[in-house]
Amino acid sequence: MTQLQAAKNGIITEQMRTAALAEGIEPEELRHGIADGAIVLPANTNHKGLNPIAVGKGLSTKVNANIGTSEAFNDLAAELSKLETAVSAGAHSIMDLSTGGDIDDVRRTILDHCKVMLGTVPIYQTAVETLRSGKTIVDMEVDYIFDVIEKQAQDGVDFMTVHCGVTMESIEHLRKEGRLADIVSRGGSFITGWMLHNDKQNPLYEQFDRLLDIALRYDVTLSLGDGLRPGCLADATDRAQVSELVILGELAQRAYEAGVQVMIEGPGHMPLDQVTANIQLEKRLCHGAPFYVLGPLVTDIAPGYDHITAAIGGAIAAAAGADFLCYVTPAEHLGLPSSGDVREGVIASLIAAHAADIAKGVKGAMQRDISMAKARKALNWEEQIALSIDPVKSNRYRHEKNTDDEEACTMCGRFCAMKLVSKYLS
Amino acid sequence: MTQLQAAKNGIITEQMRTAALAEGIEPEELRHGIADGAIVLPANTNHKGLNPIAVGKGLSTKVNANIGTSEAFNDLAAELSKLETAVSAGAHSIMDLSTGGDIDDVRRTILDHCKVMLGTVPIYQTAVETLRSGKTIVDMEVDYIFDVIEKQAQDGVDFMTVHCGVTMESIEHLRKEGRLADIVSRGGSFITGWMLHNDKQNPLYEQFDRLLDIALRYDVTLSLGDGLRPGCLADATDRAQVSELVILGELAQRAYEAGVQVMIEGPGHMPLDQVTANIQLEKRLCHGAPFYVLGPLVTDIAPGYDHITAAIGGAIAAAAGADFLCYVTPAEHLGLPSSGDVREGVIASLIAAHAADIAKGVKGAMQRDISMAKARKALNWEEQIALSIDPVKSNRYRHEKNTDDEEACTMCGRFCAMKLVSKYLS
Repeated sequence: MTQLQAAKNGIITEQMRTAALAEGIEPEELRHGIADGAIVLPANTNHKGLNPIAVGKGLSTKVNANIGTSEAFNDLAAELSKLETAVSAGAHSIMDLSTGGDIDDVRRTILDHCKVMLGTVPIYQTAVETLRSGKTIVDMEVDYIFDVIEKQAQDGVDFMTVHCGVTMESIEHLRKEGRLADIVSRGGSFITGWMLHNDKQNPLYEQFDRLLDIALRYDVTLSLGDGLRPGCLADATDRAQVSELVILGELAQRAYEAGVQVMIEGPGHMPLDQVTANIQLEKRLCHGAPFYVLGPLVTDIAPGYDHITAAIGGAIAAAAGADFLCYVTPAEHLGLPSSGDVREGVIASLIAAHAADIAKGVKGAMQRDISMAKARKALNWEEQIALSIDPVKSNRYRHEKNTDDEEACTMCGRFCAMKLVSKYLS
Repeated sequence: MTQLQAAKNGIITEQMRTAALAEGIEPEELRHGIADGAIVLPANTNHKGLNPIAVGKGLSTKVNANIGTSEAFNDLAAELSKLETAVSAGAHSIMDLSTGGDIDDVRRTILDHCKVMLGTVPIYQTAVETLRSGKTIVDMEVDYIFDVIEKQAQDGVDFMTVHCGVTMESIEHLRKEGRLADIVSRGGSFITGWMLHNDKQNPLYEQFDRLLDIALRYDVTLSLGDGLRPGCLADATDRAQVSELVILGELAQRAYEAGVQVMIEGPGHMPLDQVTANIQLEKRLCHGAPFYVLGPLVTDIAPGYDHITAAIGGAIAAAAGADFLCYVTPAEHLGLPSSGDVREGVIASLIAAHAADIAKGVKGAMQRDISMAKARKALNWEEQIALSIDPVKSNRYRHEKNTDDEEACTMCGRFCAMKLVSKYLS
């Protein structure tokens, strides 16, 4: 039985209890949200040792970190180190996007070490292995696409990105309207290339029930991918993107009715003033299914700082109702991230998520800020560092720039405003 | 004649021509905005070699970087290096907040090297020198407060933060409602301490005409400071802050009527969902005077990353109409920033300003993003780096993570989406 089927039947599972406790809400409240399809609890029945976390309406905003080998950088130890970095920095979820080395082995090793939910994009493995067999991506066999999905489900992958909404119709909208950046989703481009070359409809759309069967068996949460997401601000919220979202809404409803947990993926690159509208659109078209956004990046001109452009867009998106933020690292658009990039990406997304949680009134979110304000007023540096989102960095800054016995800090020294007026206002 | 007096009299000055050219608008349009009080053009008649830049309605959002010595770090060469770092990274304005060393000498040296507008907070020098003479801050003499302002004006300071809105009434609101963090503005705390100790009204409020006289003589733009700005999210938009803003609105009108250029300073720490309301409030209460905000920081828990919390708040603020962003560095709340911190702070604020300029439809803002999208589609790396907000960092990332002859990048390698579908969609 999936978490959704259980919830619909009024059953509170062990995973629901654990996730509700972490959220500080009643298990029944969580069960209700899952039964409505407004919350997902990705927990593959084969993922041993998983600490389940829920994603969706009324809950704190979650953050995902992408890791994985590439052909140029194929080092499993390095990816395990990124996994450890991401989780210890506070990531709630990991996606293994490996395309280098023995992909099965990489995924299984990562799964063994991953106590948070793990996601994948199975079409990557299908494409890579098709290429390795001497063929091209457009030669991917339909049965093989589903075999890989099933294998990954059996291994214990908790959620999977599947680009089911790329259809002949949505591609036609893209072609007619035109775009500056065409397609930037890797999975989306594999599917689109295959479809246009073979002149056939998307098998993940046509055989959606086959996908539902697999998802049901292992309780894989489907993350309906936005294969036509815009790759630059100028392409944002265009007909291709919106027509794909309409299709994803229909498929999400079919998944929900079948008892399969489902969330929706969203862009991407987007002018700041379009972010809130995009969230509202998803919530309406997909009947409240959780929304998992990449960024959004609110400008195209900041490679090297896309964790910041993503934090701006992510904070606005999450405040407007997005439930799950996929991090972006400073290496985005430039190369594969290092462990250091992973850390910066996770922290920036956590900041965005937390700022949004305060804005949308998530239970308990403001408490940490209140404690920090009190610690600052008391000039209690130990407490300030302990409460900070990255105690390692705040501690390093504090000690590099100050001597240990200073009560105030070197920015203001004896002109500390906090100290000056406290005797008059207390 | 001040720029405002000239504009009211229909005169287009040389400074207006220069600033309009940089903005890509007609000088007459700029003159009109200045005459309305919706735009300021800070340009002290004694600031030699100034490249004048305008701030306000319809113009691109500007970014200020604070530098300056402190008692613990009193190294003029280091501050000149920060000046150079900030301006070369793209800062439109510098504030010298020095409290260490020979403050006159520091300011004059910085002014000599500063081609962008320079701001100060004269009460700092007054307080420091009062302390050095063996007295305490509450002993500051009123004439001395104005003498320092006049001296700095004569030196060529283009704009000055003056905390004129801290009155007995606004402090009483603070005291009655209570706050977690009382007062965090240094200047605000000097004035408040002085007022409460001496039981006297704020001289900068009572003798506002004296301030206007000095500002008129040198065309100093008054930046009406928010001495009671909230120092944590929980204190945001409270009665003290709003009552001070009401007073600042009245004073801004008096300045405008006297021919003195004026802008308003704003917070500070603020939940994300209060940012837009704060901008609207300032624009209404101050009759459209340019709004200069610090941050806003949308959470209190991220010391070490406050350039990111400020970029989130700053982007939303500027998109809602804020005209001028004061940067925040990663060192905020921890110590005096280094040159590296200054650089990170400026870039983060520039990203926020640019994202907002696209959202509010500033002329030409989107063009650079369109060029970047085209360069990405063409896999033209040289162009991508040249167009990026920090070509040094993007170039370093590109070369560290890739070999020179790669067409795509190591993130996707031969699975580059851009390459895969281009032949089908072109």
